[in-house]
Amino acid sequence: MGLTNMDNVTVTFEPEGRKVKAPVGSTVLNVAKEAGVSIRSECGGKGLCGKCRIIIMDKDAVSGLTEAEKKHLSQLDIDRGYRLACQTKIFKNVVVTVPMESRLGILKVNIMGKERNVNVNPFIKKLHVVVPKPTLSDTKPDFERLVEILRRRFKDLNGIYIDYEVLKKMPDVLRNAHWDVTLVIWDACKIIEIELGDTSGEVFGLAVDIGTSKIVGHLVDLTSGKTVAMGWIENPQTTYGEDIITRITYASTSDANLETLQKLAVDGLNKVLHEVCEKAGVDPNKVYEILVVGNTAMHHLFFGIQPKYVALSPYVPAVKRTLSLAARDLNVRANPHGVVTALPIVAGFVGADAIADVLATGIYESEENSLLIDIGTNTEIFVGNKDDLICCSCASGPTFEGAHIRYGMKAVTGAIERIRIKPDLEVEYETIGNVKPRGLCGSAVIDVIAEMFKHGIINNRGRFNPNIETPRLRRGYDGWEFVIAWRDETMTGREITVTQKDITEIQLAKAAIYSGCSILMKRRKFRKEDIDVLFIAGAFGNYVNPENAKIIGLIPDIPTEKIRFVGNTAIAGAKMALISKEVRDVAEYLARVIRYHELAADADFNSEFLNALLIPNRIIERFPSVKKYLQNNA
Amino acid sequence: MGLTNMDNVTVTFEPEGRKVKAPVGSTVLNVAKEAGVSIRSECGGKGLCGKCRIIIMDKDAVSGLTEAEKKHLSQLDIDRGYRLACQTKIFKNVVVTVPMESRLGILKVNIMGKERNVNVNPFIKKLHVVVPKPTLSDTKPDFERLVEILRRRFKDLNGIYIDYEVLKKMPDVLRNAHWDVTLVIWDACKIIEIELGDTSGEVFGLAVDIGTSKIVGHLVDLTSGKTVAMGWIENPQTTYGEDIITRITYASTSDANLETLQKLAVDGLNKVLHEVCEKAGVDPNKVYEILVVGNTAMHHLFFGIQPKYVALSPYVPAVKRTLSLAARDLNVRANPHGVVTALPIVAGFVGADAIADVLATGIYESEENSLLIDIGTNTEIFVGNKDDLICCSCASGPTFEGAHIRYGMKAVTGAIERIRIKPDLEVEYETIGNVKPRGLCGSAVIDVIAEMFKHGIINNRGRFNPNIETPRLRRGYDGWEFVIAWRDETMTGREITVTQKDITEIQLAKAAIYSGCSILMKRRKFRKEDIDVLFIAGAFGNYVNPENAKIIGLIPDIPTEKIRFVGNTAIAGAKMALISKEVRDVAEYLARVIRYHELAADADFNSEFLNALLIPNRIIERFPSVKKYLQNNA
Repeated sequence: MGLTNMDNVTVTFEPEGRKVKAPVGSTVLNVAKEAGVSIRSECGGKGLCGKCRIIIMDKDAVSGLTEAEKKHLSQLDIDRGYRLACQTKIFKNVVVTVPMESRLGILKVNIMGKERNVNVNPFIKKLHVVVPKPTLSDTKPDFERLVEILRRRFKDLNGIYIDYEVLKKMPDVLRNAHWDVTLVIWDACKIIEIELGDTSGEVFGLAVDIGTSKIVGHLVDLTSGKTVAMGWIENPQTTYGEDIITRITYASTSDANLETLQKLAVDGLNKVLHEVCEKAGVDPNKVYEILVVGNTAMHHLFFGIQPKYVALSPYVPAVKRTLSLAARDLNVRANPHGVVTALPIVAGFVGADAIADVLATGIYESEENSLLIDIGTNTEIFVGNKDDLICCSCASGPTFEGAHIRYGMKAVTGAIERIRIKPDLEVEYETIGNVKPRGLCGSAVIDVIAEMFKHGIINNRGRFNPNIETPRLRRGYDGWEFVIAWRDETMTGREITVTQKDITEIQLAKAAIYSGCSILMKRRKFRKEDIDVLFIAGAFGNYVNPENAKIIGLIPDIPTEKIRFVGNTAIAGAKMALISKEVRDVAEYLARVIRYHELAADADFNSEFLNALLIPNRIIERFPSVKKYLQNNA
Repeated sequence: MGLTNMDNVTVTFEPEGRKVKAPVGSTVLNVAKEAGVSIRSECGGKGLCGKCRIIIMDKDAVSGLTEAEKKHLSQLDIDRGYRLACQTKIFKNVVVTVPMESRLGILKVNIMGKERNVNVNPFIKKLHVVVPKPTLSDTKPDFERLVEILRRRFKDLNGIYIDYEVLKKMPDVLRNAHWDVTLVIWDACKIIEIELGDTSGEVFGLAVDIGTSKIVGHLVDLTSGKTVAMGWIENPQTTYGEDIITRITYASTSDANLETLQKLAVDGLNKVLHEVCEKAGVDPNKVYEILVVGNTAMHHLFFGIQPKYVALSPYVPAVKRTLSLAARDLNVRANPHGVVTALPIVAGFVGADAIADVLATGIYESEENSLLIDIGTNTEIFVGNKDDLICCSCASGPTFEGAHIRYGMKAVTGAIERIRIKPDLEVEYETIGNVKPRGLCGSAVIDVIAEMFKHGIINNRGRFNPNIETPRLRRGYDGWEFVIAWRDETMTGREITVTQKDITEIQLAKAAIYSGCSILMKRRKFRKEDIDVLFIAGAFGNYVNPENAKIIGLIPDIPTEKIRFVGNTAIAGAKMALISKEVRDVAEYLARVIRYHELAADADFNSEFLNALLIPNRIIERFPSVKKYLQNNA
């Protein structure tokens, strides 16, 4: 093939949407490595472990199946387009989907989001310099000597200052290094590290989403902007309450409690940092900036700022703007002189994570009219386009994360993730990991409500219809309930049911989200026909069946082809801000111009909410596709 | 007198040179209080304690002696112009000299210097604000709410930021204060404190001179710029060596040693801070900025910066520019969010204290050609005028502070401070506190060398003339020595003598200082006739007999009327920088433009030094007044 190998093809990795050029004949695994797309590969690309599963729909663009693949992939896998990345060579432009299980080995926890390409221009820059030695006729002090060199090399420097701890060690480092050092500069003005010799190739940053339920981190090579490792853990604060309000209440009772929660958030971040550094073989001292996003309460708790007033009317945060602090002042175990930066927040319940959503989806610079819903314990909603963005927050609660539901659970192995009720009212389901079921995760809860409604098992007020003839509908000790899995089908030997109370919880949650969307659209003077694109973000968003979400009235009745599942855009936006000064300027701008709409103060909120409690809504005209379905199936 | 009392007179307090207006008939004590000039007054101004002794030469400008004064003052005191400040009423413009013993009760430790008037425009500003409460329709976060108010009130604000620790407590403080708070702003950009209610009247700063041998502090009211208390202690580092080089050597052997010396300097500063706050009844939390000056080694040790390379050729400091750090980061026990600022330094042995000397004397903006000598363990010398200043440093050693001399001692009670040898070679002396002598302080050492030289007891090489007939000249166990006080005259019962070795020490010290002056003048192309004014600064400068200083060749032979003793100008300059932003800009400018001349690298230094070892100098033509004296008395 020789020279032909030098021809390039374009490989697009989903769901990031990252496009890279690669020589014809490259393996997907190698191209992914080049592109900073992490794929598990425990055997190092030898076809032995079978972990590097990817999906390629265009079979003609790649090489044929190898023996190794035939051994590791089932016929069902092969039919669905699964390949092993180490075995598959690329011949033409191709789209490669890297499923979550090939990223981190933990199923269905969405720690990635749609990213947009930005120019790599991080706050952190490294500069290798050989400093002219002082002499008796040139006794310029060490710091001023460095400044002189920096001024010559960086044209855009204004004042240059230096971290105090770095200043203290600088004289020794300069002389031990024989005046051959690498400086780490933050924001073209502050020297935050001085290292012996040339270390200019090793410069990393960490993007972190501190969520209420989990902390997700992406380690990024700041020279290329590429992700070199990803990791996550449960937010250790969870032991002090699953929801934000419980934690705020705890923090508000004493400074010691606030410190406890701050320490837990920092510990969590440090664990993720340690994990990703170990995965990538990176010294944590070479991580110089941590870009943090999180909702306002998590933001305040992380910084040890009293969050009490965020939870009390009129819900006022302590600070809005971007914050940058020395890592050591927060006990963050990156380079101690490194910087921890939090993106700005919009309001009490619209935090830096929501700003990151807006950055990652680009709705602030789009001609298209967008509706963005980031579903979580709090759900943030944005409506608008490049001319004007309006946002709100609604307390959707942890229902969709498996809490407050009798058999609810997180989206991990054993959780039912999809449910279909057949015409004979028998139930089909799929579990994560294809094992016996243990419970229901958020997407299954939406499915079961929609399916029961479609089959008349529940009415539009969410009440069970006792006249339905099926052994699955029965009276439990908590009232009527519907059996999804019988005792002998489950992992636990207990039946998995949906109760009347579960249904009420879902109704409350979906009413909160829908009424938020509805009011924002009204205030922005958008009808649902005006919406060009509906972004669904958030940890569990990707697994939701959009048709069912419309049937239960969780989201406005917008054509499915206009809906885009964008995953964890909080982390994606954080990463963009980590690698780009320009993006950070945009974030600061957005925090100023995005209009926050306080639902609690909106005159229409109560009636909107009450309407939305019904399935799909008291005003059925708002859901023409559901109305049509019901008419067709009456 | 009625209305006549409303007429004002001008009262000038020396040595500060502070001028204030006061109503005719005011007592000196009350005017001094108004002017921020501290005078001891243990009885509260009732004429009972006799401690408020001041000197007024113009008897016609003030009221007559009271009975209280006649009781407390001797006839000798009265002849010398002494009065009690509480008893003396002012009728005309008058100059009042406040002697050191009326300031702090500790004799002859000069902790004040000549000050120049500057406009009060400190970095620290307080602003009392009543903040509009947030509402559901105005949910601006706390910090941005404050910024909005600040922008309205301060026109010159650029970016405003906030101390992280203050940010953390801000939400609680705002609400506990019912939104009525006082903000402390540093440099028109950083919020460093938020206090309940209106505290705008209580705003203080501390000017500190961290000297090799002592730490001097002046507590200043930043609203008026007036000094409200002064204090000093021995530098606690002295236990690790009297001179700088010993301490640098200690600090250079380990980081722990460096930390020890840093901690001692900070402890010393904290003690002075505590003392002056207690004297003035000021809460240390109301002290928001500490303006520190010190020589380069003390500067580095105070900040915990390795000073090793300052002592090694080519004598390069770590940093030159002004440094500002949070008080808590240095363990300085002022307001923890307050700022510790060090003035910039010029070079390895010309520190921030020398910059302060230049500020206090104003030589940088004078048309006059100045020679400034700040005598200490290191002596800094400046030559020039507003067009060009050149400086150097010479290792004069601690001789003039009483060290390295067999009967040398500090200028405290019992030290002989003046010596005269009569034609019959008998000795007259005065002691500090008029008690029996214990030893010789620096000024007496200069006197005795000059007197012995004038009487031919020593020759121009400093050798005793064994042919002199007096029982005071004798062989001790260390060679020839001269007896100043006999056994029965002294406090200790031991004779006080000057030895051949003592004389050699003085010759080395004075040769270092003179050769520094001489070389700088040569490089600046000034003859001694070109010098319009010679400033002698430093702790002991005030007590030196200038004629004797010329006779021994310590200072150039410049007419005495051109000599000004300006005291501790380091602290005076620090105070100017504390209360004036403009002065701080000048300091930064001076650090850049003052030319440092390295004596060690000057080709003429060795011959100049060897010449200057002789008394007054090998080139006697340089000392025409001494030559004339010798001729007249030959």
